[in-house]
Amino acid sequence: MIYKSSVDTNSRIEFVDITSEVQKTVSGSGVENGVCYVYIPHTTAGITINENADPHVVEDINMQLTKLVPAYRGYKHAEGNSDAHIKASLLGSSVAVFVENRRLVLGAWQGIYFGEFDGPRNRKIWCRVIKA
Amino acid sequence: MIYKSSVDTNSRIEFVDITSEVQKTVSGSGVENGVCYVYIPHTTAGITINENADPHVVEDINMQLTKLVPAYRGYKHAEGNSDAHIKASLLGSSVAVFVENRRLVLGAWQGIYFGEFDGPRNRKIWCRVIKA
Amino acid sequence: MIYKSSVDTNSRIEFVDITSEVQKTVSGSGVENGVCYVYIPHTTAGITINENADPHVVEDINMQLTKLVPAYRGYKHAEGNSDAHIKASLLGSSVAVFVENRRLVLGAWQGIYFGEFDGPRNRKIWCRVIKA
Repeated sequence: MIYKSSVDTNSRIEFVDITSEVQKTVSGSGVENGVCYVYIPHTTAGITINENADPHVVEDINMQLTKLVPAYRGYKHAEGNSDAHIKASLLGSSVAVFVENRRLVLGAWQGIYFGEFDGPRNRKIWCRVIKA
Repeated sequence: MIYKSSVDTNSRIEFVDITSEVQKTVSGSGVENGVCYVYIPHTTAGITINENADPHVVEDINMQLTKLVPAYRGYKHAEGNSDAHIKASLLGSSVAVFVENRRLVLGAWQGIYFGEFDGPRNRKIWCRVIKA
Repeated sequence: MIYKSSVDTNSRIEFVDITSEVQKTVSGSGVENGVCYVYIPHTTAGITINENADPHVVEDINMQLTKLVPAYRGYKHAEGNSDAHIKASLLGSSVAVFVENRRLVLGAWQGIYFGEFDGPRNRKIWCRVIKA
């Protein structure tokens, strides 16, 4: 089963911590031990795992990504959001996290972040949990 | 079973839409529901999921990747293709896509792209489909 | 079962070839055919697959990553290691490699590299092998 949920983003560029949302899906899946995949079915958003203690960390990631891939350059894509597409490919469209005793097994400082690069929008998040 | 196919690229730097090729593998695998992995066994090529409606999007991704990782800098690797190796690591060597009713489940605008960074060459694509 | 091992890094920024370590885990897992996940539970380190023949390749990757994400910029995160967090997200926190006859199936030139971006430290590596 593919578990489908969504997240509302509030700015053009923003990281949203979706760890507890993903944990709910894992709890509901009934899988004791395995691997949880979180997949983003969008092309102007991505997903990453990084520090959830100091919110400045994901702000720094966004700032540096925007320095590397600015919004104003002479891209060919007429919609004007090529920066968002490029950032999505740099981050990737999915992450895999291990599951043990129905819990996501993350490192001490890790959270799962939805990377919005062309918001604000309502965005889909898809999960699947595979038994080990 | 690892399903092995290949793609011929036509330029040094190019994205090739391999979605229908991967869908054929999924159809042939007999797996109804699960996760399909697409793995690139090369070190100067990568894989990404991005927009397949406007071909300008992947051209913009290639243009910006080349701005970030130009071909001419003073790299140490004597073969002169370090730019391709670096881009391969930025994109990654595999993607995971969910499978439902023997079909890849992609977002509305998503396609799976082989990223050639040191072509033209004949390149391998490996797939495996795991039951959910 | 999640197989937990570790690696000692020797510099602030360094790639360490962990392929043989991961192969030991696969051999010990008893899984004949499947997918091996290698997961890094840290936020200032990442993982990538790239060339293991010429060590200059990973040096070039590190050099270019550091040009793109220098250590000295005006990041907000007070610990002063935002460059490491950003590089971790660019590379990603896990890789998936196919397993056949209890062996990792890698391309001819591929090795699995732990990417240290804020060492030297003792770092954890987690693996899980799923049957196909």
